[in-house]
Amino acid sequence: MAAKIHIAVIGASKCDSRTAEIAYQVGQLVAGKGAALFTGGLGGVMEAASRGAREAGGLTVGILPGSSVKEANPYVDIPIATDMGHARNAVLVRSCHAVVAVSGEYGTLSEIALALKMGVPVVTIGGWESIEGVQTAGSPEEAVEKAFEFLRY
Amino acid sequence: MAAKIHIAVIGASKCDSRTAEIAYQVGQLVAGKGAALFTGGLGGVMEAASRGAREAGGLTVGILPGSSVKEANPYVDIPIATDMGHARNAVLVRSCHAVVAVSGEYGTLSEIALALKMGVPVVTIGGWESIEGVQTAGSPEEAVEKAFEFLRY
Amino acid sequence: MAAKIHIAVIGASKCDSRTAEIAYQVGQLVAGKGAALFTGGLGGVMEAASRGAREAGGLTVGILPGSSVKEANPYVDIPIATDMGHARNAVLVRSCHAVVAVSGEYGTLSEIALALKMGVPVVTIGGWESIEGVQTAGSPEEAVEKAFEFLRY
Amino acid sequence: MAAKIHIAVIGASKCDSRTAEIAYQVGQLVAGKGAALFTGGLGGVMEAASRGAREAGGLTVGILPGSSVKEANPYVDIPIATDMGHARNAVLVRSCHAVVAVSGEYGTLSEIALALKMGVPVVTIGGWESIEGVQTAGSPEEAVEKAFEFLRY
Repeated sequence: MAAKIHIAVIGASKCDSRTAEIAYQVGQLVAGKGAALFTGGLGGVMEAASRGAREAGGLTVGILPGSSVKEANPYVDIPIATDMGHARNAVLVRSCHAVVAVSGEYGTLSEIALALKMGVPVVTIGGWESIEGVQTAGSPEEAVEKAFEFLRY
Repeated sequence: MAAKIHIAVIGASKCDSRTAEIAYQVGQLVAGKGAALFTGGLGGVMEAASRGAREAGGLTVGILPGSSVKEANPYVDIPIATDMGHARNAVLVRSCHAVVAVSGEYGTLSEIALALKMGVPVVTIGGWESIEGVQTAGSPEEAVEKAFEFLRY
Repeated sequence: MAAKIHIAVIGASKCDSRTAEIAYQVGQLVAGKGAALFTGGLGGVMEAASRGAREAGGLTVGILPGSSVKEANPYVDIPIATDMGHARNAVLVRSCHAVVAVSGEYGTLSEIALALKMGVPVVTIGGWESIEGVQTAGSPEEAVEKAFEFLRY
Repeated sequence: MAAKIHIAVIGASKCDSRTAEIAYQVGQLVAGKGAALFTGGLGGVMEAASRGAREAGGLTVGILPGSSVKEANPYVDIPIATDMGHARNAVLVRSCHAVVAVSGEYGTLSEIALALKMGVPVVTIGGWESIEGVQTAGSPEEAVEKAFEFLRY
């Protein structure tokens, strides 16, 4: 296996079906480009993106906040149990070459801010578009395209 | 010593003199109310607030990102060397009953978002006023007053 | 307040009365020398040492594994809620100039090992005496004397 | 990909050729059983085990202490940049179903102790055999056999 590009898809652990569909498509597209999909490993956007990547034949990694790998959603291939709560957000974005935020709330905002602080490019779709420094996208295709355009190596 | 209220003052590690003056006053006022001042322990806003609290006779704690307590500014009484980089932001806000953000950039935004996620009240002065859920203040006095009004126990 | 020496007292969260008495005396002696007492903030050895330091007029810091400062024992002046589980052991020893281990089990052993790895001197009393690199002591007085003799600055 | 067993191989970042050969064989055997190999991602034992697993067609994960995925040895498929120094040892063992320690020094001892504290089975080969609670093995084959015998689910 050659060195992989890591793309994080971040967002809320509960979401509506439209947001889940976007996350699913982002996951599919990320896997389709041969990148590993990183998420926080839980439900909602994280699960939908992982399912999309899994079904497209990709590898999925979940950086979990809790103490057991069993907390991962069923589409995570490699669960990491950090047992460090929200501080795991820093590990997640630190390990990736670009971040795609699908909607999301405060947890997602913390990850966007940490990524921007660390110099990791961030593409948002459906939320947090007003944060200076993010790239915005109107579709899953545009989001993944921009993520790969701005990749940090 | 009775159980103390912990107030975090967060902001950039480099700042102009006007921002430093605001942070200094916030630190003074926090100490004047008998609370312990928590910061990230470095320069700029963190140092100015610590100096204000120290000179008002308060206790100052610095939750450092690096691996040595020597990295703390000279006004930190209790430096904690987390050696966990930006993930220490989560430890800082997690340990406090309210957060006052003085201007600040992406690192500060990550702390604001983590605090809101954890249910810790946030007062901003001079920046990030548009983030939904924060309290805003126009002066150091108002900022500290609001921080104590919304304290999370 | 001048820059303080930080001494960690580590040990099990449950212990017999004899071990607690030793921890209490170590805490007293650490405070008597003007150092801040650091512990993991919970019960057993941590609580006994904190009580000893508190009653001798010292300052006590608790580096907690959980997500709330309320988990600290009542003798902790400055509780830090790391929410990072056992990984907080690294923060505890990293922040100190010497470590005194009072008996203890696997958690204590992990802290001893981390301290030795980081170059922080370790004195053991009542347990883990066979680990190469630790100083051993037969009494609280000897333990604190050796901790101050080998202080890492 | 079905849910994988995660086996950690831990040991020093520099080691002699005999120790590296043992680690290499342990890595091979772990991969041969279809488990993912977890290491700290650096050199020495970590690199040798990763190379063994890679060459046997396995998947290798590196839980790095530093801030860049580029610090991983070339045989790590999925590098995780924790940026949390030695505290990453807790994340490594927390994420695994068993740990095999190949020789090793204080860093390894901290991981052994954390694993035992967390209830993760530990097999040692070539060092730290006297720690109560570990399983000992005289060969790579015996080490991997025992690791799978005592797997924590």
